[in-house]
Amino acid sequence: MALIVQKFGGTSVGTVDRIENVAERIKKFRDHGDDIVVVVSAMSGETNRLVALAQSIDEKPHAREYDVLLSTGEQVTIALLSMALNKRGVPARSYTGTQVHILTDSAHNKARILDIEERNMRNNLNEGKVIVVAGFQGVDEEGNITTLGRGGSDTTAVALAAALKADECQIYTDVDGVYTTDPRVVPEARRLDKITFEEMLEMASLGSKVLQIRAVEFAGKYNVPLRVLSSFDEPNFDLDDSSKDSSNGTLITYEEDDMEQALISGIAFNRDEAKLTILGVPDKPGVAYSILGPIGDSNVEIDMIIQNIGADGTTDFTFTVHRNDFEDAKQVLTGVANDLGAREVQGDDKIVKISLVGVGMRSHAGIASKMFKTLAEEGININMISTSEIKISVVVDEKYLELGVRTLHSAFGLEQKTV
Amino acid sequence: MALIVQKFGGTSVGTVDRIENVAERIKKFRDHGDDIVVVVSAMSGETNRLVALAQSIDEKPHAREYDVLLSTGEQVTIALLSMALNKRGVPARSYTGTQVHILTDSAHNKARILDIEERNMRNNLNEGKVIVVAGFQGVDEEGNITTLGRGGSDTTAVALAAALKADECQIYTDVDGVYTTDPRVVPEARRLDKITFEEMLEMASLGSKVLQIRAVEFAGKYNVPLRVLSSFDEPNFDLDDSSKDSSNGTLITYEEDDMEQALISGIAFNRDEAKLTILGVPDKPGVAYSILGPIGDSNVEIDMIIQNIGADGTTDFTFTVHRNDFEDAKQVLTGVANDLGAREVQGDDKIVKISLVGVGMRSHAGIASKMFKTLAEEGININMISTSEIKISVVVDEKYLELGVRTLHSAFGLEQKTV
Repeated sequence: MALIVQKFGGTSVGTVDRIENVAERIKKFRDHGDDIVVVVSAMSGETNRLVALAQSIDEKPHAREYDVLLSTGEQVTIALLSMALNKRGVPARSYTGTQVHILTDSAHNKARILDIEERNMRNNLNEGKVIVVAGFQGVDEEGNITTLGRGGSDTTAVALAAALKADECQIYTDVDGVYTTDPRVVPEARRLDKITFEEMLEMASLGSKVLQIRAVEFAGKYNVPLRVLSSFDEPNFDLDDSSKDSSNGTLITYEEDDMEQALISGIAFNRDEAKLTILGVPDKPGVAYSILGPIGDSNVEIDMIIQNIGADGTTDFTFTVHRNDFEDAKQVLTGVANDLGAREVQGDDKIVKISLVGVGMRSHAGIASKMFKTLAEEGININMISTSEIKISVVVDEKYLELGVRTLHSAFGLEQKTV
Repeated sequence: MALIVQKFGGTSVGTVDRIENVAERIKKFRDHGDDIVVVVSAMSGETNRLVALAQSIDEKPHAREYDVLLSTGEQVTIALLSMALNKRGVPARSYTGTQVHILTDSAHNKARILDIEERNMRNNLNEGKVIVVAGFQGVDEEGNITTLGRGGSDTTAVALAAALKADECQIYTDVDGVYTTDPRVVPEARRLDKITFEEMLEMASLGSKVLQIRAVEFAGKYNVPLRVLSSFDEPNFDLDDSSKDSSNGTLITYEEDDMEQALISGIAFNRDEAKLTILGVPDKPGVAYSILGPIGDSNVEIDMIIQNIGADGTTDFTFTVHRNDFEDAKQVLTGVANDLGAREVQGDDKIVKISLVGVGMRSHAGIASKMFKTLAEEGININMISTSEIKISVVVDEKYLELGVRTLHSAFGLEQKTV
C-alpha cells in the first residue's frame, strides 16, 4: 500500500517482449495494492535513430525542432506500455511531458524542471489508474516541447516522486544496485544495501554510471528515497526487509541510525584523466586565475587543482582535465606560461584517479594515511592528492589502476558487510 | 503574395532527401513572397511500422493510446522539415496538433475537427515564419491526443486553410492532378484544369483515390479552393494562368462561368462491387426495411438499391455491396428470404460499376440514352442503373470494365478539352 514511482530505461523497454515484461511487473505491484506511476525512456536504439535522422539534415539541428523530434521516442514507449497494461486489465493512462505539464525553462536540449502539476495524476491515481509518463521531456511556458538532455528520464522520475510525495522512487536498470566498486575490476565487489545521497553523488561524479547526477541531486534536495534495482529480477514488495535477496537493489537515502557503520562505502575511479603542470610561475596574487581563466574560456573543464610553493619565490601549479581535452589545454597553457614568464609546462595523459568515498570519514581519522600506506606497500607512486569531507582521491599512473583498486578494496574490507 | 496552405503526403516526405526537396520548394514560394503553412504526413512506411508495433502488443489496441502512438509519425516529419527549412535560412516553426490546438471531438482514431485556434499561427506568419503543422492529429477538450483516421492530413490542410482564410489549399501527391478517368485504363485520359466540388465528391467516392472525401466535403463547405498537384514537378507561382503546363494540377472549386463547358467531367469506376438479388418477395409496406435492416445490422454497407415489380403481386429487390462483404451479406439475405417467404436469392460478385460524372448533366438531356446506346453497340449488357443529379452509374459484368470505360471516354470526347 504505497505510492511508488518506477522508472524503466531504454534497455528495459527495448523490445515489445520487454515492454510486456514491464507490464507484468507493474501488474504484480498493482495486485499487491500499490499505486504506481511509471516513467519510461525511449526504446533502446530509438533515440540514436532519431539523432541520425536529424544529423543527416543538419549537423547542428535547430534546438527547438530537435526536441520536437527526440520527444517522440518516449511517446512511442508510453503508448505501447499503456496498451500492454490495458490489455492485462490494468487501467493505464499515458502522459507526454506536455500533458502531465512538466514545466521547464526554455533551454532546449538541456532544460531544467521548474514545476509539475500533480492534480491530474492524483485524480487518475484515485480512480485506480496506473500513470505512464514520458521521461526526458517537458514543456516550457509558451507550450514548446523541451528535453532534459540524455539520461533525463531519471530526473523526471525523481521530480514526479517529489511532486507526488511518493514513498519511493525505483530506478530499474540492467544492474541490480550500486556496488562497492566496479565488479569487472574487483570480482569481490559487493552490492550495497544502502548508500547516502552524498556518497552516491561522489560515486556517480567519479564514474560509476548507474544513475544520473542530476537525479541524485534532485532526490537529495527533496528527500526522495531512491532505489536502484534490476529490471530482470523478480519484484520484491517487502523492500524494508533488508534480507540478502538481490531484488532489494540499493537504497539511496539520508544517513540513518541503521546505516551500515562502514568507514568507506565504495571505491570509485576514473580512467579519463590527464594532468598538466606549469612550473616556476612567479608567485603573486591572482596567479591561479591567470592560469585557469584561459583554460575555462576554452571550454575545458578542470577537475583537481593543486598549488605548491616552488623554489626562488615561484610556485608550481598542477591540475587535471578530461583526457579528450588534454591537447587543447596544453596548447592554451603553453601560451599562458609564456605570458607569465613561467619556466616550463609538463603534461601526462596516462594517469587515473582512484577515490575512497564514505560518510564514515567525517568521524574517523587515519583513513588517508591507511590509503597512502596501502598503496605504498604495493609500490604505487601517488602523483596528486585531493580530499573532501567524504572523499579522498589520488592520481596514479594508469598502469596501477586495477592493482590499486583491488588492494584498497581488500585493505578496507569492502567485500564484507560491516554490522 | 498569397497565403497558401501546402500539404505533402507520406511519399513526398518519405526520405530525408525528399524532405530536403520539399524544403527547397517551400523556400521558392517564400522567395516569391507567399506566406506558407505546411501540413505533412508521416514519412511513408512509418505509420505501418507503428501500427505493427501496436498490433504485436494487442490486436485491438487501446484507442486512446493508439492515437498517442500514431501521432508520433507526423511529429517526426514536422521536426525534420522545420530543421531543413531553418538550415536554409527560412525561419520555420513546427506545431503538433496539440500545439496548434486543432480541437476535435473525443472519437479516438476517427476524430472530427471542431475548431482551430489561428491566433498563434497568424502571429508567426506576421513574423515571417513558415508554419509546419502535423497532419492527421488533434487534441480533445481534455487534452487527449486524437487522430482523424487514415488520410486525415488532407482534412487538416483544408481545415487550416478555412481557419486562416487562405487563398488556396494545395495538396501535393505523386500524381499531377485529377484525370477524366484512370490513365492506366484509358491512356488518352486527360488531366482536368478544374472540377467542381460536387463532381470531385462523386469521383472520389467512386474510387478515384486522389483526395480524401472528407477533405473535399470540408473544402466545399467552407469554400476553400483546393488544388491537387505533383510534388515532383517544378513549382508554378502563376496558377491562375491556365496554360497547359502540368504544374497547374487540378483546381477543385465551385462552378464558375469560365468552367469548362463539358457535359461530362470524368468517368469513375469501382471494381469492388458485388450484387445480391432477392426474388419473389410478397409485396407489402415495409418490405425494403425488412430486407435492408438486417444487412445494415451486420455492419455491411449497401451501395446501389433497385426494386422492381415482379409477377403475382411479388417484388424483386437488388442491391450492391463491397465484394469483401458478399458472403456475409448473402448469408444474412438467405435468412431474410426464409422469414419473408421469398422465392429465391441470387448473387454475383463478378460485377463492376461505371459512372459518368458531370455538372453539365443538370441542364442537358440525352446523356443517359447516349451512355446506354454506346454500351449496347459494344454488346455490353447493363445489369443495374442508378442516377443522381450529376452522375449516372451502371453495373456491368467485370470483364467489360476496360472496354466500357474506354468506349464511353471516347464517345463523350473526354480526351479533348471543350472550349
